[in-house]
Amino acid sequence: MDVFLRNGKGMLLAYDQGFEHGPSKDFNEKNIDPNYILDIAIKGGFTGVVLHKGIAERYYNGKVPLIVKLNGKSGLVQGEPLSTQVCSVETAVNLGAKGVGYTIYLGSANENVMLEEFGQIHDEAHNEGIPAIAWVYPRGGAVKNDEAPEIVSYAARVGLEIGADAVKIKYTGDSETFKWAVKAAGVSKVFMSGGPKAPTDESFLDQVRGAMNAGATGLAVGRNVWQHEEPLKIAASLQDIIFNGRDIAKPVQSPVATG
Amino acid sequence: MDVFLRNGKGMLLAYDQGFEHGPSKDFNEKNIDPNYILDIAIKGGFTGVVLHKGIAERYYNGKVPLIVKLNGKSGLVQGEPLSTQVCSVETAVNLGAKGVGYTIYLGSANENVMLEEFGQIHDEAHNEGIPAIAWVYPRGGAVKNDEAPEIVSYAARVGLEIGADAVKIKYTGDSETFKWAVKAAGVSKVFMSGGPKAPTDESFLDQVRGAMNAGATGLAVGRNVWQHEEPLKIAASLQDIIFNGRDIAKPVQSPVATG
Amino acid sequence: MDVFLRNGKGMLLAYDQGFEHGPSKDFNEKNIDPNYILDIAIKGGFTGVVLHKGIAERYYNGKVPLIVKLNGKSGLVQGEPLSTQVCSVETAVNLGAKGVGYTIYLGSANENVMLEEFGQIHDEAHNEGIPAIAWVYPRGGAVKNDEAPEIVSYAARVGLEIGADAVKIKYTGDSETFKWAVKAAGVSKVFMSGGPKAPTDESFLDQVRGAMNAGATGLAVGRNVWQHEEPLKIAASLQDIIFNGRDIAKPVQSPVATG
Amino acid sequence: MDVFLRNGKGMLLAYDQGFEHGPSKDFNEKNIDPNYILDIAIKGGFTGVVLHKGIAERYYNGKVPLIVKLNGKSGLVQGEPLSTQVCSVETAVNLGAKGVGYTIYLGSANENVMLEEFGQIHDEAHNEGIPAIAWVYPRGGAVKNDEAPEIVSYAARVGLEIGADAVKIKYTGDSETFKWAVKAAGVSKVFMSGGPKAPTDESFLDQVRGAMNAGATGLAVGRNVWQHEEPLKIAASLQDIIFNGRDIAKPVQSPVATG
Amino acid sequence: MDVFLRNGKGMLLAYDQGFEHGPSKDFNEKNIDPNYILDIAIKGGFTGVVLHKGIAERYYNGKVPLIVKLNGKSGLVQGEPLSTQVCSVETAVNLGAKGVGYTIYLGSANENVMLEEFGQIHDEAHNEGIPAIAWVYPRGGAVKNDEAPEIVSYAARVGLEIGADAVKIKYTGDSETFKWAVKAAGVSKVFMSGGPKAPTDESFLDQVRGAMNAGATGLAVGRNVWQHEEPLKIAASLQDIIFNGRDIAKPVQSPVATG
Repeated sequence: MDVFLRNGKGMLLAYDQGFEHGPSKDFNEKNIDPNYILDIAIKGGFTGVVLHKGIAERYYNGKVPLIVKLNGKSGLVQGEPLSTQVCSVETAVNLGAKGVGYTIYLGSANENVMLEEFGQIHDEAHNEGIPAIAWVYPRGGAVKNDEAPEIVSYAARVGLEIGADAVKIKYTGDSETFKWAVKAAGVSKVFMSGGPKAPTDESFLDQVRGAMNAGATGLAVGRNVWQHEEPLKIAASLQDIIFNGRDIAKPVQSPVATG
Repeated sequence: MDVFLRNGKGMLLAYDQGFEHGPSKDFNEKNIDPNYILDIAIKGGFTGVVLHKGIAERYYNGKVPLIVKLNGKSGLVQGEPLSTQVCSVETAVNLGAKGVGYTIYLGSANENVMLEEFGQIHDEAHNEGIPAIAWVYPRGGAVKNDEAPEIVSYAARVGLEIGADAVKIKYTGDSETFKWAVKAAGVSKVFMSGGPKAPTDESFLDQVRGAMNAGATGLAVGRNVWQHEEPLKIAASLQDIIFNGRDIAKPVQSPVATG
Repeated sequence: MDVFLRNGKGMLLAYDQGFEHGPSKDFNEKNIDPNYILDIAIKGGFTGVVLHKGIAERYYNGKVPLIVKLNGKSGLVQGEPLSTQVCSVETAVNLGAKGVGYTIYLGSANENVMLEEFGQIHDEAHNEGIPAIAWVYPRGGAVKNDEAPEIVSYAARVGLEIGADAVKIKYTGDSETFKWAVKAAGVSKVFMSGGPKAPTDESFLDQVRGAMNAGATGLAVGRNVWQHEEPLKIAASLQDIIFNGRDIAKPVQSPVATG
Repeated sequence: MDVFLRNGKGMLLAYDQGFEHGPSKDFNEKNIDPNYILDIAIKGGFTGVVLHKGIAERYYNGKVPLIVKLNGKSGLVQGEPLSTQVCSVETAVNLGAKGVGYTIYLGSANENVMLEEFGQIHDEAHNEGIPAIAWVYPRGGAVKNDEAPEIVSYAARVGLEIGADAVKIKYTGDSETFKWAVKAAGVSKVFMSGGPKAPTDESFLDQVRGAMNAGATGLAVGRNVWQHEEPLKIAASLQDIIFNGRDIAKPVQSPVATG
Repeated sequence: MDVFLRNGKGMLLAYDQGFEHGPSKDFNEKNIDPNYILDIAIKGGFTGVVLHKGIAERYYNGKVPLIVKLNGKSGLVQGEPLSTQVCSVETAVNLGAKGVGYTIYLGSANENVMLEEFGQIHDEAHNEGIPAIAWVYPRGGAVKNDEAPEIVSYAARVGLEIGADAVKIKYTGDSETFKWAVKAAGVSKVFMSGGPKAPTDESFLDQVRGAMNAGATGLAVGRNVWQHEEPLKIAASLQDIIFNGRDIAKPVQSPVATG
């Protein structure tokens, strides 16, 4: 994961929403263009950018380390979620990826398909010498509240158990409960998922402060940056929190030791 | 895709309807014969022809660049649509294909099967040095209106995200909203799907003008040509619009830049 | 297909009913014995015999060209029909097959499994230099009447589209509508399916005359021959119609040209 | 199959009930021990013993020819039965198997999975030079009475059609209808399935006499022997019937000729 | 299995609960840390430790023989249980595993997937020269009480039939009925599953005494040790029972002989 970290912290720019949510839900005339996002990634000081195969293949310019998302589904489908591989590890590496990402809908009736596929991807990625990052999103009829602390920490823990080098999880709402999730993740690096655009900058930055305070390694963010009127301004604030620890109280308890 | 373009624009003659809809729904005594269609493809100035394996194998004459459709389903089946591979990329190439096509029913409960299969086809096609073209048709219980702008642009965007060299999508009904779909497709070339026979020539030509005005690369058309009384006459009108830009107002906004 | 034709016409003896319908439904003390059928195949002047692997392996004597049926299902199962491979192309060839047969239940919710499997079989058979013959039977909840002309011609057309060297379809009831099915099949040879024992010889022979008049290549028949009191007598009548064109008015329109 | 026959007849001791039914349903303190069964197999004059992989691997002593059962399911599962491979042909051969067995639940909504898997096993077994034996048990919602003559003979026939060297089927209740099943099986050897413990020895022996009279090759028996108070006594009676034809009237009609 | 035994008995420390149940259900601030567990494994005299791939890869220190659990599912999913492979045998061996574990939900509508997968794992593990251990847990709509003697003994028996070197099963509640389960398992070593934290130490130790008295090889325990206030104290008591036979009456009947 070191390639995606600066001083042990990371700030990833995610741009898979065109696939997952569709352009009309999340994009405007500017951020619909991948070049706009890649420009933000560079100028905003991001340590990684997350793209699907088709965008990586034809827009990626090599300037910010690349994570290729290996699976995806449309937001149209209902029922128990299932997202399977649309890109191989080998192809991702050929596109210049320094890491691969994969979403697991934990709690879905189809979770076993994704857990199994991640297992194989993990082996392949490590054979290529790159990290395998798990987006672990509890979802499906069995999951009532995917931001509940016990659900978020479950996601984090499964990331550890299946060997994810990093796990991307939702924020629990407060730093204290997020600490438990970070602890559950053990040596797997925790990236807070940025989620939909927050009502105010400050409310979003507060979440990030809470996550960092809880021991997170960093943030994987999309909409809160590239839907922002001034993406570089919010990116600067994020850098200040993530890399400089600005306004983050010391964690009340250090994260679990590594083996 | 260059092999299917003339001056950067393309006009593809599609003839997979015998499989998808059946002969009694779409054919008459003339157009039921593949030779009739191939003759139109040549004389009508088409830049590509789309055939299934069995017709390509036994009728194709090499005169117009060939796209082999790799999957297909009958129009009889109900429920969440699923169309899987009936022809391999290797076989298509052996039949003389210069490109392959594959239909993805986005929003179907089975979309993951098709997204995954396209991912593999895409790799194989690129290894063979030919383009992989996605017919992206939102369909299934979750899709209420497959011509709604936000649905068509979603289809276009997924084409980009999965690496389709070109994406075939329905027309949204007006040029302004189709522009958004073209923008969503980014560097993936957009081909408007001809659809069922329009009530009048002019109403169909207007759609094509709207699509071209919106920045489309071209048209993939079947019934509106080979169900026409005078196929070469309508083909000539289409050429005039697509290649010469006849009666197309300049797009109000240029399509997204490429990477 | 030439190995199964005499003067361009064919008469195949089908004997897969023990698997598809069971012995108590279709067999008597004589025709339950595969040797009885093989004897009819030779003496009745058949140009091919259709057997499953287990019978081909242990009864086939090499005297009439062999088609091995590669899939099969019992008549007990209800619901959307699904029949998958019980014999590989390689094994069929080792058993002496000069052609392979495969049933596709078009319109079944499972049609994609069979269409995909046929695609692979087709490639393998052609690599072995033998024809792949499709039994295309529209069936399942979406199919109300599998003898309706638009349904039979759909079956014929799919045979063409997927590359079947020959397609076995039901009779539509009259020569005029069967002509449309033959036309839909294009260069794929059409074999009329014999179906259950007709009430009288003449009513069955009339169907065969109608199919041949419509341009069919021939007949694939089982029960109407080997359930007959005098199989060789009915076989002689069939030969007279199929190979000599006895009592067949000239088709009103010649079948589609080949590429 | 010769390795499992003595003078053309066979008597197989089946011991897969621990897997299929569970120990509490079928076993007592003695017959729960595989060594007890292997001892009976030897001393009882059996021509073959049927075991699952785990018992074959650790108890089998090489003294009676071994058939390894390749699939299995628990008796707990409800719904349409499905039993898939738990042991490969290669592993079975390494364990000393001289034959392999596989259960097909004919009529199950899942029958195609088992028919397909048997097809592959059959090829592999014959490549290894050993017979593939099919347990064909009609079962599932579509099967009302699995001892009805038309159902049992259907099972026998499918055994023939798929190439089973031998087929194990239930008894129909009388010799006359079982003859039809034997005839349906053609050259596939027929083994009557012993079934649950009969109320009296004589009632069980009568079934065996009926099956042998009908032309069966032999018996595959478990519970009626190893649940018996005196297994070797009942085994002696069975030998007398099966190998010496004691009290078996000559079949009224000889079984079908072989090819 | 010898590597996991001391004087023929074994005491395994299981730590897959973070995956199976989630951290909030089973963990506290101490036992959420894998290092805490590994420390107990060493100091508590355990003969083996059970971990998932991700924890084995990054925490395992080689001091206690390792079993890698090859499949896993979250406790969130409802319906018929299905747990498939998240780690290959090869990867487990590379992580230092001296044995592999796999859970089979016997009685689940999906049991065949797991039985089949175990069959392959078993072959691979034996090729690597390490044991394959089956966690056999009857579960699903068809299983009313998974601690009923006839259900537990069924689980044990299936372990034997599929070749498990050891089988982990629940306690039946008393030594007498557990003896039947041990007998059913034959030469497969039986490990009692520790289960949730018992109300008192003594009630738990009584279960262990009962299992050992019944002929079990040992115990696979997690929560009753690492949720304990004094893990090393309870571990010492367990060692005394398991290895020294403290307070265990001699089994009333010796376990079944081996082949």
